Amino acid sequence: MTMKFKVLDGDVTSPKGFKASGIHAGIKKAKKDMTLIVSDVMAEGAAVFTTNKACAAPVIVSKACVNQGKIKAIVVNSGNANACTGDKGLEDAWTMAETTAKALGVEKENVIVSSTGIIGVPMPMELVVPGIEQAAAELSYDGGLAAAEAIMTTDLCMKKIAVEVEIDGKTVTLGGIAKGSGMIHPNMATMLSFITSDVKIDGDFLQESLKQITQKTYNMITVDGDTSTNDMVAVLANGAAGNKAIDDKHPEKDKFLEAFYFINEYLAKAIVRDGEGATKFLEAEILNAPTEEDAQLAVKSILGSSLVKTAFFGEDGNWGRILCSIGYSGADYDMDKIEIFLSSAAGEIQIVKAGQGVGASEEKMLEILKCTDIKITADFHKGTASAKGWGCDLSYDYVKINGAYRT
Amino acid sequence: MTMKFKVLDGDVTSPKGFKASGIHAGIKKAKKDMTLIVSDVMAEGAAVFTTNKACAAPVIVSKACVNQGKIKAIVVNSGNANACTGDKGLEDAWTMAETTAKALGVEKENVIVSSTGIIGVPMPMELVVPGIEQAAAELSYDGGLAAAEAIMTTDLCMKKIAVEVEIDGKTVTLGGIAKGSGMIHPNMATMLSFITSDVKIDGDFLQESLKQITQKTYNMITVDGDTSTNDMVAVLANGAAGNKAIDDKHPEKDKFLEAFYFINEYLAKAIVRDGEGATKFLEAEILNAPTEEDAQLAVKSILGSSLVKTAFFGEDGNWGRILCSIGYSGADYDMDKIEIFLSSAAGEIQIVKAGQGVGASEEKMLEILKCTDIKITADFHKGTASAKGWGCDLSYDYVKINGAYRT
Repeated sequence: MTMKFKVLDGDVTSPKGFKASGIHAGIKKAKKDMTLIVSDVMAEGAAVFTTNKACAAPVIVSKACVNQGKIKAIVVNSGNANACTGDKGLEDAWTMAETTAKALGVEKENVIVSSTGIIGVPMPMELVVPGIEQAAAELSYDGGLAAAEAIMTTDLCMKKIAVEVEIDGKTVTLGGIAKGSGMIHPNMATMLSFITSDVKIDGDFLQESLKQITQKTYNMITVDGDTSTNDMVAVLANGAAGNKAIDDKHPEKDKFLEAFYFINEYLAKAIVRDGEGATKFLEAEILNAPTEEDAQLAVKSILGSSLVKTAFFGEDGNWGRILCSIGYSGADYDMDKIEIFLSSAAGEIQIVKAGQGVGASEEKMLEILKCTDIKITADFHKGTASAKGWGCDLSYDYVKINGAYRT
Repeated sequence: MTMKFKVLDGDVTSPKGFKASGIHAGIKKAKKDMTLIVSDVMAEGAAVFTTNKACAAPVIVSKACVNQGKIKAIVVNSGNANACTGDKGLEDAWTMAETTAKALGVEKENVIVSSTGIIGVPMPMELVVPGIEQAAAELSYDGGLAAAEAIMTTDLCMKKIAVEVEIDGKTVTLGGIAKGSGMIHPNMATMLSFITSDVKIDGDFLQESLKQITQKTYNMITVDGDTSTNDMVAVLANGAAGNKAIDDKHPEKDKFLEAFYFINEYLAKAIVRDGEGATKFLEAEILNAPTEEDAQLAVKSILGSSLVKTAFFGEDGNWGRILCSIGYSGADYDMDKIEIFLSSAAGEIQIVKAGQGVGASEEKMLEILKCTDIKITADFHKGTASAKGWGCDLSYDYVKINGAYRT
């Protein structure tokens, strides 16, 4: 497809009317650990949160704030997840919202609060409160990079991007930052993604769009299958671009949604690429399934299988494991129709036809598997639905990072 | 509880009226690869099979045979799973049943066929057929050990046991053998368990009992979460003990069920203990859950979490991960009520109270985690249901065994 939008080397301060900052509050020894993202005017807020029942205090607070309506700012700390911290944790999360609101002259309900870091340790509020005040003092229109840096925990690389799209003849910009590469560090919580935009958009439409896009992006990536206590994707849209408010009836809504989808898929894939100990980036796609749910079940099962993941780490074109993982996925398909292909920069090879191995060339397979980015495609030939997902291999380093922490 | 039965150092030929053999047919280079278990008289047969849609040909054949009624024999080969082999594979599985039936003077429908080994490779029937004939010729009343040996693939230890229980004043014996430690070897299929008994029992009652017990034993173990294409648990009961037929109304049915449960739990745990690269044997138990399903969901989620598994490998008492895995399990519980304990031969320690860490002593925790057998107990304080399950840690060797096969 021809992209109707332009990709920029930007971040959350690329859209008009957004300031940000990232500072060192002292929660972490040396690295930046406090991020603030602020819209000049009240913005439409939308967010999706972890479904983990053991969700963290900031998740509870942010849910309440997003539900009440307009959002002015997002405050994020790294180094402490404020999870499994009981009533005191909830009180601390509200204090973070209040401190931010006070510094910006708004209500605490206008603030989204987010935390990532150690689980089960009380928040060092004596550091957090002054940290937020300092972050507010250092807000700037080019603070996006510092903001992206301060939400990192053990991420190896910064995750940021911006996209430009024309709506009603106006330039609309979206910017995003993300962190998390699975619960990589013992007790560390996982995925955060924050997106800003100067688009004018209906709040309910924004929330609904984010929900649907999350299903196809963040919910289709897996690093280790563990759903964290702090997952959050939050979007602020302040309308500074001056386009006509986007809603279901807007003639150019699809143009916006395409850009909105792209930025979320990009950040989701960036998280997997930085997965713990990952040496391979895997994309799985199911074609011609009876329903999208069948396709998604199969995609998740392939990418979630420890045996598939270790096989790719070992550069072993083990089609039996891929077929097996589809077999127990719960997806509806026919063994005698399924075809499976492997592809990468080195080319494409069919490994399964009508549910049986085709005796693919080991040499050709190894060429394909030696690449870092590998795609698994399974064609069910049993419908018209499809789904895509992303994951990584399972390496010694995953075990080392997650097992050998204290030893 | 006081055991109402006696545990013997036995196997499938411990019960009266069962012969067995294990020979080398040549499917594997040097090791035994063909097992035959035969009842002197027609026996009641019961079996449960993998739910994997990509189930192997022998599973399809055995389902048909068990459904038609009486069973005389179980024939098992290792070295080739006859899975993902299409129509030819199905034909080969039926040929295995026919060859066995011919040698024993019965119908092919009286034979259970089972295979474990490489997926997607045609069965070497020129070796399999004479192998079955040789196995039939070598049947003996003390062939159980050879039978247990010939079903092993990359298992490190033989899995066998027998149990004696008195019913109607008669000595009833149950014997069992099992193989499989997860899909340990690339392309290898997983779990097989075969149980014989001289008990006289109603066929439907036996099948129903096996189904229920499987839910609490084999279905509550996890090595790597991959459900194989060949899983099978099969039971033969030939009535040689001379007790009154056990059914729902038999006064001593519970005595039998207790022994029947024990032998299955023992074999299930033996499989996990031999899990690929496992260095720790983990038991997880949920107490006082709203429903048994809630308890089972939580048990499976704890034991299935890569983060929990690597933490135990690293001897890291990482309670945040345990709580997190319960959080996304779908089980119904209250964060402010949950308590979690770790125990082993070195003692017991509480790590979570009311959903928060209790600051357990690191020294004490490490003592407990240094042991090979570790138990995780979570009390939901939200009902009366409970569930137990077994798993193992995730070690470098798991990745090595499963990833570094061809390299």
